[in-house]
Amino acid sequence: MTTTAQPALLADRFNTLRYDAEQRAVIVLDRRRYPFVVEYATCRSLEEVALAIETMVVQGGPPLAYVAGLGLTLVAALTAQAPAAQQREALHAAAARLRRTRRTADDLEHLLQRTLAVAESALDAGVPADDAVCDYVNGEIARGNRVARRCGAHAAALVQDGDRLLTHCYPGAALNWMLFLAKQAGRTFEVVVTETRPYLQGARLTASQARDTGLPVTLVTDAMPAHLMARGRITKLITAADRITLDGHVVNKIGTYQLAIAANYHALPFYVLGYDGPDPATPSADAVEIEERDPAELFSVAGMRTAVEGIGGYYPAFDITPPHLVSAIATDRGVFPPMLIARYFDAPDKDESYEP
Amino acid sequence: MTTTAQPALLADRFNTLRYDAEQRAVIVLDRRRYPFVVEYATCRSLEEVALAIETMVVQGGPPLAYVAGLGLTLVAALTAQAPAAQQREALHAAAARLRRTRRTADDLEHLLQRTLAVAESALDAGVPADDAVCDYVNGEIARGNRVARRCGAHAAALVQDGDRLLTHCYPGAALNWMLFLAKQAGRTFEVVVTETRPYLQGARLTASQARDTGLPVTLVTDAMPAHLMARGRITKLITAADRITLDGHVVNKIGTYQLAIAANYHALPFYVLGYDGPDPATPSADAVEIEERDPAELFSVAGMRTAVEGIGGYYPAFDITPPHLVSAIATDRGVFPPMLIARYFDAPDKDESYEP
Repeated sequence: MTTTAQPALLADRFNTLRYDAEQRAVIVLDRRRYPFVVEYATCRSLEEVALAIETMVVQGGPPLAYVAGLGLTLVAALTAQAPAAQQREALHAAAARLRRTRRTADDLEHLLQRTLAVAESALDAGVPADDAVCDYVNGEIARGNRVARRCGAHAAALVQDGDRLLTHCYPGAALNWMLFLAKQAGRTFEVVVTETRPYLQGARLTASQARDTGLPVTLVTDAMPAHLMARGRITKLITAADRITLDGHVVNKIGTYQLAIAANYHALPFYVLGYDGPDPATPSADAVEIEERDPAELFSVAGMRTAVEGIGGYYPAFDITPPHLVSAIATDRGVFPPMLIARYFDAPDKDESYEP
Repeated sequence: MTTTAQPALLADRFNTLRYDAEQRAVIVLDRRRYPFVVEYATCRSLEEVALAIETMVVQGGPPLAYVAGLGLTLVAALTAQAPAAQQREALHAAAARLRRTRRTADDLEHLLQRTLAVAESALDAGVPADDAVCDYVNGEIARGNRVARRCGAHAAALVQDGDRLLTHCYPGAALNWMLFLAKQAGRTFEVVVTETRPYLQGARLTASQARDTGLPVTLVTDAMPAHLMARGRITKLITAADRITLDGHVVNKIGTYQLAIAANYHALPFYVLGYDGPDPATPSADAVEIEERDPAELFSVAGMRTAVEGIGGYYPAFDITPPHLVSAIATDRGVFPPMLIARYFDAPDKDESYEP
């Protein structure tokens, strides 16, 4: 088994999303087809950016928030020559449109609010907002990369020899770092991925990232994990979180909850990659809006009809796992018991360049 | 909502499998594509019959056993003019080949043994075995249809107004009868089907049969049921069983166990369609061989590659649910508590024409 020199491609978000000043466009890797097709969408208008988020060209709480931030960067650039009042209005309208794209993960709202504040400061100081917005959003992406790396490092310390880590969906850049750093530390372990219908992120994204890290990967369907647990073929469950409430509920890709119940039934640990911690604005689960997507997305696989006509469908995109089913949450500031995740805000931030 | 005059097509196995004496062939509906394509495989040799079972042209414990029985019917017809010793040898070799096809459901083994005994009796009496085998197998299919109907009737009594019944895979003819009879009795209820990867039996077979019975059907992915349970959108879980052990373990399509754990966690009933009861030859779960299918079947959907290259896969076709996660087992002889399922053999058999 080879040891790779760096984590797999999706560890660095700049590999998958950026603002291109020359083209005046937001460039986004199409995660719906990666790695079968490596294709970048070029979004030249705010609406194209919003649709890239809504149609899952970009996926995952932080990445889709970054693309929204780059959308504001685009709008700021396109309106840089306009009067300040007009640029201000355009940015607020853009944020309102982007806010409507996907509502469950908390990163989007925070990044929109902070970016608007940066724009307001520039405009208040009498300069166009474009440079300040661009610098701020790029700085946030860079910070997010560092958060993912530190979160992954804390999670890597939870990986033991002989582990068979079950993942669901694609847990993002922190997973890449976790796998890479645990392997670099000499741990011998394997990764079991659920395929994650309907978008098959497990079969494509997680499988490719773990494989590219030099790890053995076993694919199963979404229905199989409990059986593997009963047979001793799973040692730990690891997922990300699209939002964590202050009292420790984990909002994540639909299916996480079902696996958490199965892990709990088999007395297996469930560790969550919590990135930069809980959402300070979400006290508990009833404050979370679960996005419901078009059921038509369940009726076919990659464009081919797989379900009969004349039936309905239901597609909640996320579910909520209560804290008593979660063993620990790894963040960039360390590992926390789920019910004490609010202590994240009391822990030191090791990111020197971060100013809240 | 219309009320249908009869249960949906798959309720009667003769609609999907039969021996055609004129063509000297076993005719089998291709369940891998039904109802998108209604196509019948014509098996003119024992090997074609065995491959139809192995490649899932026919699926489900009783149906695949019936096709194996029809395979013996074909062999008996093809060797009817041969000396008795040669016909006897051909039938035993055929049974050995058919026995190797799929090992988890118990119906196959029982039907092979009993059909061989019928053939031996004919040969011992000095006549070719073809007529006796053909009559016996057709009689077993007819008896199986009656078993499914009575099992479905007992299960229909468990359906209540307002129920949202979650199914997994396609629970077979007894489900069709359960849905039809519960609807005929005036119950108002809905069916939620898991798509059931990799063969999508839920999205195709169960969805079409429930729809054709005039019931509202909602499709979800295999990962979603626990979330629906938490939100009150599921009231009962209903599956079939490929084998039931004498101490109440339920062997069924992979994924059943994970749903049973989720139902138990939410204090929801899990009812099993147990057809003609437990396997008298299987005392408990450790006597059950779980079939493992080619992992390549996980890497694509209907021929289109959906998983990346360079990874492994694991495809256990069945799992085992312990009796404490099962609420009740409905059979043709009534409804039993799982741990007391062996009492099935003490209950009266209402099938007048059945001689054990």
